Amino acid sequence: MNYKMIGRFAAKILLIEALFMIPAALVSLIYSEWKVLQSFLAVMALIGISYGLIRLLCRKANPNFTSREGMVCVGMTWIVMSLYGCLPFWFSREIPSFIDAFFEIVSGFTTTGASLLSDVESLSRGLLYWRSFSHWLGGMGVLVLMLALAPGTNQGAGYTIHLLKAESPGPETGKLVPKMRQSAAIPYIIYIALTLVNLVFLLAGKMPLLDALCTAFGTAGTGGFGIYNDSMAGCSPYIQNVTTVFMLLFGINFTCYYLILIRQVKSVLKDEELRLYLAVTLVATALIALNLYGRFDTLGETVRHAAFQVVSINSSAGFTTDDLYQWPEFSRAVLVVLMMVVGACAGSTGGGFKCSRLLLIIKSLRRSVNQLRNPRQVQAIRINGRVVDEKVVHTASAYLIAYILLLAGSLLIVSLDNLSFGANFVSVVSCINNIGPGPELVESTQRFADYSILSKLILSFDMLAGRLGLFPILVLFSRSTWKR
Amino acid sequence: MNYKMIGRFAAKILLIEALFMIPAALVSLIYSEWKVLQSFLAVMALIGISYGLIRLLCRKANPNFTSREGMVCVGMTWIVMSLYGCLPFWFSREIPSFIDAFFEIVSGFTTTGASLLSDVESLSRGLLYWRSFSHWLGGMGVLVLMLALAPGTNQGAGYTIHLLKAESPGPETGKLVPKMRQSAAIPYIIYIALTLVNLVFLLAGKMPLLDALCTAFGTAGTGGFGIYNDSMAGCSPYIQNVTTVFMLLFGINFTCYYLILIRQVKSVLKDEELRLYLAVTLVATALIALNLYGRFDTLGETVRHAAFQVVSINSSAGFTTDDLYQWPEFSRAVLVVLMMVVGACAGSTGGGFKCSRLLLIIKSLRRSVNQLRNPRQVQAIRINGRVVDEKVVHTASAYLIAYILLLAGSLLIVSLDNLSFGANFVSVVSCINNIGPGPELVESTQRFADYSILSKLILSFDMLAGRLGLFPILVLFSRSTWKR
Repeated sequence: MNYKMIGRFAAKILLIEALFMIPAALVSLIYSEWKVLQSFLAVMALIGISYGLIRLLCRKANPNFTSREGMVCVGMTWIVMSLYGCLPFWFSREIPSFIDAFFEIVSGFTTTGASLLSDVESLSRGLLYWRSFSHWLGGMGVLVLMLALAPGTNQGAGYTIHLLKAESPGPETGKLVPKMRQSAAIPYIIYIALTLVNLVFLLAGKMPLLDALCTAFGTAGTGGFGIYNDSMAGCSPYIQNVTTVFMLLFGINFTCYYLILIRQVKSVLKDEELRLYLAVTLVATALIALNLYGRFDTLGETVRHAAFQVVSINSSAGFTTDDLYQWPEFSRAVLVVLMMVVGACAGSTGGGFKCSRLLLIIKSLRRSVNQLRNPRQVQAIRINGRVVDEKVVHTASAYLIAYILLLAGSLLIVSLDNLSFGANFVSVVSCINNIGPGPELVESTQRFADYSILSKLILSFDMLAGRLGLFPILVLFSRSTWKR
Repeated sequence: MNYKMIGRFAAKILLIEALFMIPAALVSLIYSEWKVLQSFLAVMALIGISYGLIRLLCRKANPNFTSREGMVCVGMTWIVMSLYGCLPFWFSREIPSFIDAFFEIVSGFTTTGASLLSDVESLSRGLLYWRSFSHWLGGMGVLVLMLALAPGTNQGAGYTIHLLKAESPGPETGKLVPKMRQSAAIPYIIYIALTLVNLVFLLAGKMPLLDALCTAFGTAGTGGFGIYNDSMAGCSPYIQNVTTVFMLLFGINFTCYYLILIRQVKSVLKDEELRLYLAVTLVATALIALNLYGRFDTLGETVRHAAFQVVSINSSAGFTTDDLYQWPEFSRAVLVVLMMVVGACAGSTGGGFKCSRLLLIIKSLRRSVNQLRNPRQVQAIRINGRVVDEKVVHTASAYLIAYILLLAGSLLIVSLDNLSFGANFVSVVSCINNIGPGPELVESTQRFADYSILSKLILSFDMLAGRLGLFPILVLFSRSTWKR
């Protein structure tokens, strides 16, 4: 294991994390939140010291990087980043328990949006900003972002590719990605531009600047940390609709935007994953709107809530505009099924099982059934007309297996806390898929905060595992990685 | 589609089903249940007429049978068999709704054991016998049993093989099965012998003959229909322990018994599936016994209940000795996870996801992770030291995909009834895996009987799909099967 390179990499990430704390510290300064400002400065100082120490310990690193080391590096870096990222909450005592602070920031970086805070509005402005900003950082992949910001040094040939592979969510169907890789900057430009447009729309709805920033971060990263105690229930219909549209947009593969920019609109319209994503959104919205008949005054209001919630869950943001526990069971089941097996598009900031994986496993199942029917038939799986490499198909199946086993294992440990089965199931599914809503979906009185320390750690693990596509975390925690 | 052959086959099955109703009719006669006796006779007459009609319509059948037709034939036959099998309940008005009667007998034939009856003890003896006997018939595969009983006519070359393939539960790991095929009779001899031994043990515990017969049928088929209102809670510890042992035995691959008979004990002891099955049983029993600490007076009693329940769920029988809703959430979560992803051994009468599939997907996942770590490595999957055909590995993955999609789809429809999410989830998982216990595991007040007609049909479909290994039912209901 190339510890020195991993250490150097982690150190660089920490340094950049400290840089990203500056805006949050400025917010504290503006609002005269001295204690929070002190906390930020203390964390930055701590990072500075850590950086120096690591660089000292990890001199003369061998720049070669294997696939295995890439995975371990990504897994470790996310954990280290979260360990430091949660310190402002803990130092300021606004979240007095370290484990709670860790859970909160992991939920932020992984763009899950599951929160332990019952009274978000009492949080200081600086920490609120940092909490939502973590969504934005985590959305596109922190490591890659940081690589893009600090290029040049120490990038061996396979280095970037291995990290990109390990961090990019969703299966590689190989369709357009090679083009993108030529410049890691393009998706970031799109990301920043879309976030700004979102911000402008929110400001146009008379949202205060800080609230609009936090909401835009949560939307762009498909994170879903609410900045009000009722998430977005109190926002105007305009703000809710803007958020619906942008959550939908951030759940789409960014390659599509790139293709639109270079005027290949046709291939975007024919994209099977995009079609599945939009079709699922439409059908689920229609089903829920029908099922909610009578709950709201007008049809328009019903559709607004249904669309918001479907897009919010399916893009993996997780904002809410209503007390979902009050919704009929069918509507909630639709949302849980979206959580379980649908999700956003690959190459977006969204999480979930991912539409591309769903497409792959459905096609793979169809092929297996065909082969049982006509054993001599040999078929390749095609997506967007192109043959998909069998390795990609296998990896999607392996992902499903890992997902189910992780779900079963987590469910067991979490159930030691004696919350109800339904609540535990939804919590684990929500964390693995980085969605956000938890026990409150099935039990009116239960919250993430009701879990024990052990369960919070397990759920944090699930969020990290889910955000990194399960395998890097599996590799990190598998015995044979550490043999030899 | 070779309708004539399928028709002729179904007709033969119906005739044999009528023969198997004779013992139940005799029980009615002995207990002077005239109305029930009339119902049995009416059904038998109806079957006679149907048989004549089908034979008349399906003359001159082409004896060739494809794999696809084998699957359709199996799927159809199970449905037809259930449609006629439920008639005694309906004709006698002891189950006044046809759908309820259908659900009950499907639950019987598929060895699920999910019941709509709240007061089983008020059922007439003849119907009680038929209900439990359906477990015994379904346990080993009705079609194959019937083929074994009525050999000779119309058996084309691939005919028997295709039916065996379609009906036999669990993936073929190919290890010992070819030997077994040489004589379809051997597993039946083992089945009958083990059932008789079980019966003798129950009678030795002073259980009345009819009760002992029904309990033995439910145990041998790993069905789990209780014949008392409290399932087996009222039975003596001796009876409970006997049942634990025999449920465990009936969940083991029958090939193991054959191997023991021909003195190949070593290869049985080394069997990876058997080891996994026993290890899971032991670990789960230990975990639950620890978790139940304090609920029962003595350690012995605690272990007895824990072992009974673990074996009952994992072998897919589904008897209970206690009100599981009163157990702590962790114990119930262990049971639900056993329901979801473990189950009995392939080649046994038990259902569930099956230990062999679990073994295959775990090994397949491990291989995928290894390949991500070292992309150039090529590995075969081995079970019991032998390389497993990649087709078998793919089919296990395809099974998991089909299972998850069926689970998600069923969950949606069933949730229209507004029962809680946890209850719906357990019900669907229990039916697909042919286990038995349902909503009462997570909600004290909810029962299978609370579901609507639509949900009962969906759950019946799930039981049939699960019993036949998902694919035959998928093929039966897939559009492309009926094209051309």
